[in-house]
Amino acid sequence: MAGSSIGTIFKLTTFGESHGVALGGVIDGCPANITLDIDAIQYELDRRRPGQSSIVTQRKESDEVQFLSGIFEGRTTGTPIGFIIKNEDSKSKDYDHVKDVFRPSHADYVYQEKYNIRDYRGGGRSSARETVCRVVAGAIAKQILKECSIRAYVSSVGALKVTKPYNELDFDNIEKNAVRCPDLELGKEMENYIKEVRKQGDSIGGIITCVIQNIPKGLGEPVFDKLDAELAKAMLSINAVKGISFGSGFEGTELLGSQHNDIILPGGNTVTNYAGGIVGGISNGMDIVFKVAFKPVATLMRDQESINTSNEVVVVQGKGRHDACVVPRAVPIVEAMAAIVLTDMFLLQQSRKL
Amino acid sequence: MAGSSIGTIFKLTTFGESHGVALGGVIDGCPANITLDIDAIQYELDRRRPGQSSIVTQRKESDEVQFLSGIFEGRTTGTPIGFIIKNEDSKSKDYDHVKDVFRPSHADYVYQEKYNIRDYRGGGRSSARETVCRVVAGAIAKQILKECSIRAYVSSVGALKVTKPYNELDFDNIEKNAVRCPDLELGKEMENYIKEVRKQGDSIGGIITCVIQNIPKGLGEPVFDKLDAELAKAMLSINAVKGISFGSGFEGTELLGSQHNDIILPGGNTVTNYAGGIVGGISNGMDIVFKVAFKPVATLMRDQESINTSNEVVVVQGKGRHDACVVPRAVPIVEAMAAIVLTDMFLLQQSRKL
Amino acid sequence: MAGSSIGTIFKLTTFGESHGVALGGVIDGCPANITLDIDAIQYELDRRRPGQSSIVTQRKESDEVQFLSGIFEGRTTGTPIGFIIKNEDSKSKDYDHVKDVFRPSHADYVYQEKYNIRDYRGGGRSSARETVCRVVAGAIAKQILKECSIRAYVSSVGALKVTKPYNELDFDNIEKNAVRCPDLELGKEMENYIKEVRKQGDSIGGIITCVIQNIPKGLGEPVFDKLDAELAKAMLSINAVKGISFGSGFEGTELLGSQHNDIILPGGNTVTNYAGGIVGGISNGMDIVFKVAFKPVATLMRDQESINTSNEVVVVQGKGRHDACVVPRAVPIVEAMAAIVLTDMFLLQQSRKL
Amino acid sequence: MAGSSIGTIFKLTTFGESHGVALGGVIDGCPANITLDIDAIQYELDRRRPGQSSIVTQRKESDEVQFLSGIFEGRTTGTPIGFIIKNEDSKSKDYDHVKDVFRPSHADYVYQEKYNIRDYRGGGRSSARETVCRVVAGAIAKQILKECSIRAYVSSVGALKVTKPYNELDFDNIEKNAVRCPDLELGKEMENYIKEVRKQGDSIGGIITCVIQNIPKGLGEPVFDKLDAELAKAMLSINAVKGISFGSGFEGTELLGSQHNDIILPGGNTVTNYAGGIVGGISNGMDIVFKVAFKPVATLMRDQESINTSNEVVVVQGKGRHDACVVPRAVPIVEAMAAIVLTDMFLLQQSRKL
Repeated sequence: MAGSSIGTIFKLTTFGESHGVALGGVIDGCPANITLDIDAIQYELDRRRPGQSSIVTQRKESDEVQFLSGIFEGRTTGTPIGFIIKNEDSKSKDYDHVKDVFRPSHADYVYQEKYNIRDYRGGGRSSARETVCRVVAGAIAKQILKECSIRAYVSSVGALKVTKPYNELDFDNIEKNAVRCPDLELGKEMENYIKEVRKQGDSIGGIITCVIQNIPKGLGEPVFDKLDAELAKAMLSINAVKGISFGSGFEGTELLGSQHNDIILPGGNTVTNYAGGIVGGISNGMDIVFKVAFKPVATLMRDQESINTSNEVVVVQGKGRHDACVVPRAVPIVEAMAAIVLTDMFLLQQSRKL
Repeated sequence: MAGSSIGTIFKLTTFGESHGVALGGVIDGCPANITLDIDAIQYELDRRRPGQSSIVTQRKESDEVQFLSGIFEGRTTGTPIGFIIKNEDSKSKDYDHVKDVFRPSHADYVYQEKYNIRDYRGGGRSSARETVCRVVAGAIAKQILKECSIRAYVSSVGALKVTKPYNELDFDNIEKNAVRCPDLELGKEMENYIKEVRKQGDSIGGIITCVIQNIPKGLGEPVFDKLDAELAKAMLSINAVKGISFGSGFEGTELLGSQHNDIILPGGNTVTNYAGGIVGGISNGMDIVFKVAFKPVATLMRDQESINTSNEVVVVQGKGRHDACVVPRAVPIVEAMAAIVLTDMFLLQQSRKL
Repeated sequence: MAGSSIGTIFKLTTFGESHGVALGGVIDGCPANITLDIDAIQYELDRRRPGQSSIVTQRKESDEVQFLSGIFEGRTTGTPIGFIIKNEDSKSKDYDHVKDVFRPSHADYVYQEKYNIRDYRGGGRSSARETVCRVVAGAIAKQILKECSIRAYVSSVGALKVTKPYNELDFDNIEKNAVRCPDLELGKEMENYIKEVRKQGDSIGGIITCVIQNIPKGLGEPVFDKLDAELAKAMLSINAVKGISFGSGFEGTELLGSQHNDIILPGGNTVTNYAGGIVGGISNGMDIVFKVAFKPVATLMRDQESINTSNEVVVVQGKGRHDACVVPRAVPIVEAMAAIVLTDMFLLQQSRKL
Repeated sequence: MAGSSIGTIFKLTTFGESHGVALGGVIDGCPANITLDIDAIQYELDRRRPGQSSIVTQRKESDEVQFLSGIFEGRTTGTPIGFIIKNEDSKSKDYDHVKDVFRPSHADYVYQEKYNIRDYRGGGRSSARETVCRVVAGAIAKQILKECSIRAYVSSVGALKVTKPYNELDFDNIEKNAVRCPDLELGKEMENYIKEVRKQGDSIGGIITCVIQNIPKGLGEPVFDKLDAELAKAMLSINAVKGISFGSGFEGTELLGSQHNDIILPGGNTVTNYAGGIVGGISNGMDIVFKVAFKPVATLMRDQESINTSNEVVVVQGKGRHDACVVPRAVPIVEAMAAIVLTDMFLLQQSRKL
């Protein structure tokens, strides 16, 4: 274990820095004979891509994935799928001013402490640009779990919150607005708010809700590799995530058991779904529902105090190209990580059926 | 990966069911030459033990750990530490009534779906009794990280919440009340509330806050095995946990970056600690702070509707011995899982220092 | 990874020392609903047991396995199978004389160097007594792969060698003699030779041949976890093993490709089987055949020079109860390790079949 | 585990097929701040490269490695090192004749059976071209273990064998002849013999001996991840390898314990080294010595009978560019795999030192 891999049977290993030659990865353990829909993969990458709308970073990256192995005549061969995504618009000079400086709430300082060296350009390995590789693997995972629907959406930006439960929302609206909020009116408000925040050189946090439907019962490997535990790990591994909750989550702690218990009906469905589709770490066939909290982006277009590598107080200037709110672009990343975890758990569960 | 192990260098594997002969585990990769404080291990077990106070389950278990290997003349030898804890007071007959029935919000149904067989006595493997093994390993891990302080406490029961920040609380109070709330007055209220809930045959949820102090900088293995990601997985693997948040958590999503950024001071400390001690998945030397949400216990002393193994609607009676609120006994479990993860990350970090 | 586990899907973790309270293990990932034949497990343990014949160590151990979990009403439940085997006849006093001494060609010295502490009684963790746990797991693995035949036999003791190819031998003879040689006449010679060697306080090496029949095609995970690579690792992890070869092995290096190539017939069988049933790291459906070399036992009933923990030259006396030749008792261990590896590879292969 | 990774702390994951766009890999867990000697890496690649002499395949590949990440200003950063090696001279048309045919003793048949699809061009993933990635990682590993000497050499080609023990050979001679035999006279004979065999459209096997000097004591993780077990797995994962033996190996099985025991001298050195530097699965500080058996190359420049994908008997023609004997080019691969295993074991051992 050295941190760059996730999954046991369906395993993704990634590499690459924000301003290096290329990012890339290896997907090992992908079942053979899957006819890959390359357009669908690119579609997911486009949803994560910088420059896709006026509220996201304007770094220009085509983010085209180049597959180097593991695919033959359009189908997976069961051998490792190697791929790269080139960095095209890395303006490393934009980062000369942070070469010797640790930006507040960025990973600059901890990378220096951990490794005693860091590639300061664009945050190096700690940049969210790394998630581009996750989206590739997630898009392939979605094609393995093709019966299953994995949909994420922005449920809050700052204090602006979707109040309706997910099953009263029209998921077709998600891709119809720059924020990826299924409530179009609220989405417009969120968009304006993000623009306002950006104008002030500031940033804002938000929440993404993820809903997974039509997933087989029985996924998850207690007692440590429970389905919710694996999803939690996967989500917390995404940049800027500070929390996750399943089903009733933190609010559920205020309920009595008599309110919270999900009564089981013949066939196995439950009347309510406070559990969020996972009981005892195993999927029960109901919709899996969880929320992921993203802190405000650390990069501000303002001056901030901090220290430099000589341990002196300095002023860090606000430079570079960044999102003022990360959640719109994080939606496909959340979906990708969910797809990777579910595929791994699905294959694992399948292995034991004699 | 088959679900019963956690950790890479410091690895715990557990086995055992609620009403089997014994539970136990193997701790592999424990450094050699640690003089084990067996009393300190038993102390942690006693904090988790049933029957310790009037608000917890009255099942009578001495929960004495028997070490079978890996220790010689009081010191660890570097070889695997095998241990067992016998089940003494398992009243399996109490569970005859659920032999063919799936209790609501219990894991009965999903275990049947996943494995097509289940040990129904006391929930079998899905029982929280399994966590006794985690506490053993956690108590040893604490002795490895002896410079470090890992303290958890009950910060809410239902709507009763500790409102003071952790650094205004007296942690010495935690063990002075049955609920393990550092605010003794509130702890008394919580205790009374739990008794009231129990009297009604009901249960209630709660939140545990965990504070880790004096931990080395640089722990955590990006990009997938980040420290917060590993802690999240570990916590979500505990029975009844539905969410986790670090630092500012879900509340932090409403803040602006200019409010939320933690300004770094010479030496590396930060003015604020919205990050909760982890930035970019790596410890920054500040206190690690996280909250864990526990749902209300599923077992009620009431009749509830459900289905049986023949897919018929039945009434499940409320029987057995259970906690009405799980958080008081879960405090040492949260600490144990934190200690296991931190020890693993500490040893991993150490491996790379040439 | 800390050394005490083997397998990914079907995973065995062991613990225990030669003279500790008990040895034991955890089998994680065993498929559910297997009706275990406990007698068949005990049969394998009896084949490995000390005191089974006049040519093996006379330590008296009943070697009865006690299962603690993972089995309900005679069937596996899919949860981890914990088990222990108690040490009954450990005469630790026999080892007082080696407390401060490093026996030649034993692991005493390297354990001290590695861990800076060692349980010197009976070799502690480095004793072959540890393999008792492997036999338990192997016996269960055999019941999973019930179509498959895994047979090992002694093919040489010192210079006494079985010259016939395996398919001209009668495997029913293996258990008919104390040496486990399928050639009964040669087996008698071997037995006498071992007795002679023992009488002189000496020991002798030998070779075990293993033949696996009726194994599915397609097992093995290139490019690193090839079937032969995994078997090699498993065999080299057995005490006293110094080499392994598959099919034509070392002798095959002298052949021309035109002699060595196995011509494929319709249906996939090959005319010859120089490959030993594994090509490109994957089973091809032919018999898997490999040989495992065991060095002579290090314990001699003679005085030998060595050093003590103070780095002084000392004379080590020959004491304790030991085998003069390890191969007769190693036959079930080789089979067990093969069964564990094959089961793991079988489950892994199964996981990817959509 | 999906087969394309090796190592726990220092972990290599590879991808790529013989005739794909590129091969490549990810080295995860490399310690930070190592100033990489890129020339030394290229030197190892050149030793493995096709076309380097008249006795090896004439495929023309520059085999230049391109690093994509993990290195900053010449030093490793502790983040994953991604790299690719492009395929330049893949004459896929040479393989049209085997599209529907299974070549004898090649992996064509088993890949089809395992995955139900295969990239037939040049053997696809089963080609030894994949080992180019191992050499890159091994060359970096050598730079981590810079105190340690890892030298391999050809000790036999067919029946032509080096008879002198390794410590009477001049290792400086290894690179002075095309065969990589330290006995130059014998090397010339071997070279001529290989040319003769090739002229006849045939191939021949051979043995490589590996000697590792100045390795720390205490490496290896009993009881399953013993140093010899890990080395065995690593070597058996190399194409065409059919066996491995340590120290006295198979010959040692004929010795008495009184002949075979290595008497320990003050300081820990032993008089003899029958153990081959590894006792109880742990390095004892003596030279590690092992032999690796390679079968004759399967590709012959002759017609051979086989079957096609329609299960019909066909004649396979001898085409393509191949080595008649694989051992000269396998020398750097054996060294690379040894370096990878030792580095991983070294870092693992270091992790536990408190």
